[in-house]
Amino acid sequence: MAEDKTKCQTCSQNQAGGCASESCTLPEQNLLGKLNKIKRVIAVMSGKGGVGKSTITGLLAVGMNQLGYKVGVLDADITGPTIPRIFGVKGGNLKATDYGIIPSTTEQGIKIMSVNLLLPNEDEPVIWRGPVLAGMVKQFWGETDWRDLDYLLVDLPPGTGDVPLTVMQSLPVDGIVVVSSPQELVLMVVKKAVKMANKLNIPVLGLVENMSYASCPHCDEKLELFGVSHADEAAQQMDIPLLAALGWDPQLSRMMDEGKIEGYSSEEVTNLVKILADGQGL
Amino acid sequence: MAEDKTKCQTCSQNQAGGCASESCTLPEQNLLGKLNKIKRVIAVMSGKGGVGKSTITGLLAVGMNQLGYKVGVLDADITGPTIPRIFGVKGGNLKATDYGIIPSTTEQGIKIMSVNLLLPNEDEPVIWRGPVLAGMVKQFWGETDWRDLDYLLVDLPPGTGDVPLTVMQSLPVDGIVVVSSPQELVLMVVKKAVKMANKLNIPVLGLVENMSYASCPHCDEKLELFGVSHADEAAQQMDIPLLAALGWDPQLSRMMDEGKIEGYSSEEVTNLVKILADGQGL
Repeated sequence: MAEDKTKCQTCSQNQAGGCASESCTLPEQNLLGKLNKIKRVIAVMSGKGGVGKSTITGLLAVGMNQLGYKVGVLDADITGPTIPRIFGVKGGNLKATDYGIIPSTTEQGIKIMSVNLLLPNEDEPVIWRGPVLAGMVKQFWGETDWRDLDYLLVDLPPGTGDVPLTVMQSLPVDGIVVVSSPQELVLMVVKKAVKMANKLNIPVLGLVENMSYASCPHCDEKLELFGVSHADEAAQQMDIPLLAALGWDPQLSRMMDEGKIEGYSSEEVTNLVKILADGQGL
Repeated sequence: MAEDKTKCQTCSQNQAGGCASESCTLPEQNLLGKLNKIKRVIAVMSGKGGVGKSTITGLLAVGMNQLGYKVGVLDADITGPTIPRIFGVKGGNLKATDYGIIPSTTEQGIKIMSVNLLLPNEDEPVIWRGPVLAGMVKQFWGETDWRDLDYLLVDLPPGTGDVPLTVMQSLPVDGIVVVSSPQELVLMVVKKAVKMANKLNIPVLGLVENMSYASCPHCDEKLELFGVSHADEAAQQMDIPLLAALGWDPQLSRMMDEGKIEGYSSEEVTNLVKILADGQGL
């Protein structure tokens, strides 16, 4: 189809060459992502699956948002995305303008971009080879209309393959939060993630040990379900600060299943958010 | 370098054309993997990380081996390999002949191939793009000297990307065991894995729900840590049989950390192994 020369290529409303629309003050150009001003990019990584990357990403987003920061979450786990679900955000209605795809917004105002917002059903698989997955993550970064954000949190998939590599190489990541759990074999895999970040010169902000312990709801005794926590020792071995050792809370698990992570709060999490958002000047 | 015409291309010892070595009875050809006779290939998948794919793979291998079957484990989780660790097998000493790489063998005689057996340190990262990862898995299949096996179990990585795709397309997979946990958002991701297998026409043997429940070691009360189990309903939704709903056992977790999974047994696991190895004729 021939280009419509009577339309402004920037705002699509007025005449090209002499657009007088108030909302259109930019020259004609490829506008995708051009208005984004993102102050800090923090990636949440573990190498290992199922230790709580999405949980920690979600809790950090909620906490930072409640402190008044403008927060976005880029769900880089294209083949196993859980971010929309834990925030109770449904897909299927994403819109786009010349400035890019408009991310979904949670109840409390966090911006979210995830492949599950683009799929007809949330349990539809994305059967793609790595370079295509990585390409989508680049689009989520550069072709999403994030606008002004204080923090963009990137929820990485497990492993040290295409997507973490692309995020570390192509996005201006300011730092990585590493998530682990007390099991020793988890720690072995998590160390791979830390070494990858070191090789690619991305600062590691510190370790969050998740599922450090649980309490029996019947007798209130402390349970070391995933083995004895040695968070301090683990952080020391990897030469990174220990940011938090979070207990296992079945209530959080329930709230995430119900899409209500924004209703959850705990002192432990509040402290973690403050360390990251205020303490280290990030 | 010119080919040495005085050497037999098969056994590298005797004269070509008239090799008289007793160990050399095969014609000159590329021998890699040519002697492998693998009766059944079962892949263990979940889509989601951290639900216990490697645990279930390991337990199945141990159980089948104890029933007298010849068993191998192909660790297809190249960026997050845990199989050698849970069997207490160290790397660094793999050898190869013209028939391929000789896999490591566990105390009880299970053959294992994993990228962690090739690395100088078990926590060294493999920072590769998907097609390279998938290429390595193909090598683990075709260039490993597995010889006669009744069962080769393939431990898949999380997700529905390169490696599961390559395993389903390039290996003669007889069936897939799907692993889940009670959390609803885990189930959402697991359904993606089942749909992927359906799309690629690989039979799904059934569902194993892991971490279905735990028991408090202090008061012995049943704990539903990861939410209320709805294994039956989940299996029904995915239209696959429910093979087992396994409880969480901290002892198993400890034994895996210590590399002693072969010392673990439970009635639940024995039943699961019997269903797969005997009941369904696999």
